Amino acid sequence: MIYFDNAATTRPDEEATKRAAEFLTELYFNPSARYGGGFRVSQILARFRESLLSYAGATGRYDIIFTSCGSEADNQAVFSFGRRGNVVTTAGEHAAVYASVTELKNRGVEPRFAPVERDGSVKLESILPLVDDKTSLVSVIHINNETGAVNDIASIARAVKKKNPRTVFLSDGVQAFGKLATVLPQEVDLYSVSAHKIGGIKGVGALFKRKGLALSPLVYGGGQENGLRSGTENTYGIAVFAYAAEHKFRTLREDAARLTLYRERLLAGLDREIFVRLSPEKSSPYILTVSAVGMRGEVLQRMLWDRGLCVGTGSACSSRNRFSRVMTACGYGEEVLDGVLRMSFSPTTTQDEIDEAAEILNATAKEYQRNTL
Amino acid sequence: MIYFDNAATTRPDEEATKRAAEFLTELYFNPSARYGGGFRVSQILARFRESLLSYAGATGRYDIIFTSCGSEADNQAVFSFGRRGNVVTTAGEHAAVYASVTELKNRGVEPRFAPVERDGSVKLESILPLVDDKTSLVSVIHINNETGAVNDIASIARAVKKKNPRTVFLSDGVQAFGKLATVLPQEVDLYSVSAHKIGGIKGVGALFKRKGLALSPLVYGGGQENGLRSGTENTYGIAVFAYAAEHKFRTLREDAARLTLYRERLLAGLDREIFVRLSPEKSSPYILTVSAVGMRGEVLQRMLWDRGLCVGTGSACSSRNRFSRVMTACGYGEEVLDGVLRMSFSPTTTQDEIDEAAEILNATAKEYQRNTL
Repeated sequence: MIYFDNAATTRPDEEATKRAAEFLTELYFNPSARYGGGFRVSQILARFRESLLSYAGATGRYDIIFTSCGSEADNQAVFSFGRRGNVVTTAGEHAAVYASVTELKNRGVEPRFAPVERDGSVKLESILPLVDDKTSLVSVIHINNETGAVNDIASIARAVKKKNPRTVFLSDGVQAFGKLATVLPQEVDLYSVSAHKIGGIKGVGALFKRKGLALSPLVYGGGQENGLRSGTENTYGIAVFAYAAEHKFRTLREDAARLTLYRERLLAGLDREIFVRLSPEKSSPYILTVSAVGMRGEVLQRMLWDRGLCVGTGSACSSRNRFSRVMTACGYGEEVLDGVLRMSFSPTTTQDEIDEAAEILNATAKEYQRNTL
Repeated sequence: MIYFDNAATTRPDEEATKRAAEFLTELYFNPSARYGGGFRVSQILARFRESLLSYAGATGRYDIIFTSCGSEADNQAVFSFGRRGNVVTTAGEHAAVYASVTELKNRGVEPRFAPVERDGSVKLESILPLVDDKTSLVSVIHINNETGAVNDIASIARAVKKKNPRTVFLSDGVQAFGKLATVLPQEVDLYSVSAHKIGGIKGVGALFKRKGLALSPLVYGGGQENGLRSGTENTYGIAVFAYAAEHKFRTLREDAARLTLYRERLLAGLDREIFVRLSPEKSSPYILTVSAVGMRGEVLQRMLWDRGLCVGTGSACSSRNRFSRVMTACGYGEEVLDGVLRMSFSPTTTQDEIDEAAEILNATAKEYQRNTL
């Protein structure tokens, strides 16, 4: 099986799960416990926090709050700071931001959505007019999870803060952290990340929070995570996350360079009469989204699965509607939207897999055409 | 190391983590994905749901929403139904309910706390007068996590519903599920449970919800868990939970009977001049709380750790204050509160461990006395 749906979830990093196994067998203590075992686990968690901060160039400037997933991190940020006036975000956000900002309507806060470009990115000119003196929060996704388009969050955040310095700026970094070399720009107050997109297990995320910013809890209770996220810490999952991130960041630049070549090689291998590129040229090296125009992407997806190639059709999280909300917002017609396929890679992706995938994609699309003639 | 802090967290069940390992290696697919691997994982999750429902005698009557922990399950229930009027709960609740109900004050809802008895249990007569026609939610913990006292949630819920049929009834079942044979009484609308208290890993909980009850999400996004809890499901953690629960429920009655004998044997082995029993006689077989009156529990705890016995001092979750909030609410004075030690067991606890623990406890307390003379 060639697994090209790494933007939906990755196979957990084997080295990381093995290193973390001691949290299942020996270091199972509750990190809040005030005896040797509890202290030990709590100290190791503190080390993991420091490592993760350092990977984002955030040491000393940010705190990390461990959450149960990227969605929870997004929700905590949105509900903590989207309390009055209006909240500005984009039509290209992941559902965790899009749906939580939409929910704000029921809480007396006005949601405002900036349109996106054809490639899924958002222009500063689309966001800035929506920001006014009543804007409490602005949220812009770092890398669009459906097209791979990269938003220049540093410039956008700077311009937003210039217009309204009291506005809090959130960016969903789930598809960027561990893939794109990033030094968190000081204007970005909050940055959400997820473990299972980079070799961690599902059920672990984190929110980077600029020091001094007063975040509210989403989950109240025993006061873990400095009072900001109650509930016993998912120590095993956090350990796998920290080890997987260590692994990813070690070779992040080489991996990105190699995957950029692979992405273009895959595209070059695809039949131009069938597949149209939707990802921008300057997209994440980890994502290539195309459309088999006029075909049904989910039918193709199942045929591909049967032939040993696993791909996505847009965001797996919003798989209940026929068309992807984000791809629709990009402005494509039904013919293109129907045929969307997202290939997403990992550092373990090989050139042989790329070449084989191109062949399978071409052959399968041709078979689809024959079947529907 | 004799580990008697199982009410804080358990060592993950080795059989369960091994059986679940395939979710780390082969079945890593996103359960929302619409191809073979995704369907397969999603089907297995559905089977886990059915198993967990069946253990609580809840099949067909309740739904299960997987959450990231017991605290999140409690919070979702409290914030979903504590929206107007007043919310009635007890002074003996776990922090996840106590703190979230307290937070309701900031949201225009009046929190009301019923006093508890000396043993940590709550009487119907303490709760019922607080319930009126403006009560939106009542929450009563099933088994008190600090004393092991068992509340008769069926009778309490029935009486509450009789007084105000529109009141929603929540019970925190974290210390009961997988330990006490329970058929969820129909009057209990919501029941929260946690995986890591019964051999699961940290980072997994669940909320049992009576069918037809309209729960709101706490985390919005991709619409997982039937729209009630967004975020990619923690498939590995859920699998460990399901397998650990299967293991526990297989021998639940025998384990409870044996641990009842062990609990009494431990108590009988303790020096009566030093230790006073705080747990009621009809408490959970899994918890024995005593006080070494006049001694400092946390000092004893560390001395015990050094001698190979790991015990709690009340709730590890609220370890930031000198005295436990719950034990204080029970009405004890400082001399007793200072010396609280909680021994909590698991089905793997042996009689030899019980006997050795009694000896270590006696010897350590005597050494403490000699040191402080």
